[in-house]
Amino acid sequence: MAENLTTTITSESKTVEIHRSNPTVIIGERINPTGRENLLAELKEGKFDIVRSDAQKQVEAGAAILDVNAGVPGADEEPILKEMVEILMEVTDVPLCIDTADNPALETALSTYKGKALINSVNGEEARLESVLPLVKEYEASVIGLCMDDDGIPQTPQDRFQVAAKIIERADKLGIPPQNIVIDPLALTMGSDHNAGRIAIETIELVVEEFGVNVTMGCSNISFGMPDREHIDSTFIAMAILAGMTCPITNPLHEEVNLAVQAADLVMGRDEYGMNWIKSYRARQKEE
Amino acid sequence: MAENLTTTITSESKTVEIHRSNPTVIIGERINPTGRENLLAELKEGKFDIVRSDAQKQVEAGAAILDVNAGVPGADEEPILKEMVEILMEVTDVPLCIDTADNPALETALSTYKGKALINSVNGEEARLESVLPLVKEYEASVIGLCMDDDGIPQTPQDRFQVAAKIIERADKLGIPPQNIVIDPLALTMGSDHNAGRIAIETIELVVEEFGVNVTMGCSNISFGMPDREHIDSTFIAMAILAGMTCPITNPLHEEVNLAVQAADLVMGRDEYGMNWIKSYRARQKEE
Repeated sequence: MAENLTTTITSESKTVEIHRSNPTVIIGERINPTGRENLLAELKEGKFDIVRSDAQKQVEAGAAILDVNAGVPGADEEPILKEMVEILMEVTDVPLCIDTADNPALETALSTYKGKALINSVNGEEARLESVLPLVKEYEASVIGLCMDDDGIPQTPQDRFQVAAKIIERADKLGIPPQNIVIDPLALTMGSDHNAGRIAIETIELVVEEFGVNVTMGCSNISFGMPDREHIDSTFIAMAILAGMTCPITNPLHEEVNLAVQAADLVMGRDEYGMNWIKSYRARQKEE
Repeated sequence: MAENLTTTITSESKTVEIHRSNPTVIIGERINPTGRENLLAELKEGKFDIVRSDAQKQVEAGAAILDVNAGVPGADEEPILKEMVEILMEVTDVPLCIDTADNPALETALSTYKGKALINSVNGEEARLESVLPLVKEYEASVIGLCMDDDGIPQTPQDRFQVAAKIIERADKLGIPPQNIVIDPLALTMGSDHNAGRIAIETIELVVEEFGVNVTMGCSNISFGMPDREHIDSTFIAMAILAGMTCPITNPLHEEVNLAVQAADLVMGRDEYGMNWIKSYRARQKEE
């Protein structure tokens, strides 16, 4: 069993320490135009009102880090992402997770950002390793490593683990320590493979056992196409936390998921005297 | 990692195989007068209408085994438990979990019951080991082993594991195989110790790793005194299933808990094509 590592992500004024004995860190996923027509329309017009309000709402709901994605089809990501990063640094003080597959956009965003960012993402593909890892090193950032490579997404936990191991090793060769790598085992849809949840969970267990690194995951894809999705999502997230996931990428405005994270932290003994649970209960009572 | 064992519990016509790759087995906890005034009053009068209806409702809601407890303060348990066992064999065909600390009542119930029962329970106390294990052997029953002994309930997962190991060893000496022992790590109240959940989960992990035995647990005590208990209970049950719990003792009429069990089985890949999940969703739709 490897020692649990601390991944430190910072903004100008805030430090988030991701570690398996701390409460789970929620990375808010909302600031992403994929599948969100109103946000997409705004970004095309050069407006950022939804970005601002999404940032504030997610932080209020418990996001400790905000993912920022500027993927507007057909548009040049670089200036949009840069402006989004600047705006987010104005309206909130939480650290950012810079989410782009466009390397010039990533570099500009990293040079604009004041703090140690989390980068979303690298994977085991040669081209990505070669383009992203040097930026991780240069900006002393951390990076999410997806368990897929030039051959696609492996079917078994063991093969996904091998991709994670490759990313960690390649980073190490460039002088990037393993605490700056956050592994994403990839949660596919159980609607197309009923073993998708088990494979993700077992990948987490293997990676944590061997490397002690922090683990993220998008947790809502898993239930796509199934009824009563919120129960599946909240159950999956709690089980993933027990397996070792420390910083899920989710929508903290979904109360079911938020409650599952808080309840899982409570069960894991990370909520001293249950104070967070009781505080959040009281906040919900006031809203009603 | 020990091989996962199969615990077989039977009625005259049904066989329940508890195993870590099968769907979770729910042991229905309702037929127990502790804290249930209406049931207690009926049993005192020698009436069994609630026993009958509780049996049917729990089986309809998904209980695969029914716990039966006849603990009426001041009354002689032996004839009451015997009659309850007879009635339950009439009104339902699921196997029974005979729940008593009274040894003559246990022996009479076992000799009345047609099938291989689960006994609730033995623990690491010398007197209990000596009185209960010979009956387990004689009736080829299985037995729940609670992780407590003459010194009380140990504080650490390691010490609870030691009690489990002692029960399994003592049973083995009498020729009772480990697959006939179902360990209960004991879930105490997080309201009095915020590590209670973690200790139970870690005990499960240790016991499963070493012995591969099946694991039960009462899952509602954990949230006693906390607000929004159903979220804590359902999260805890899902995490315990990932840790290795295979047959929780719960109230299947609590929908939140039931859904958590089904969702956990889905995530564990034990629900082929999600058919159980979809079936249960359709049943809920019809009820509405």
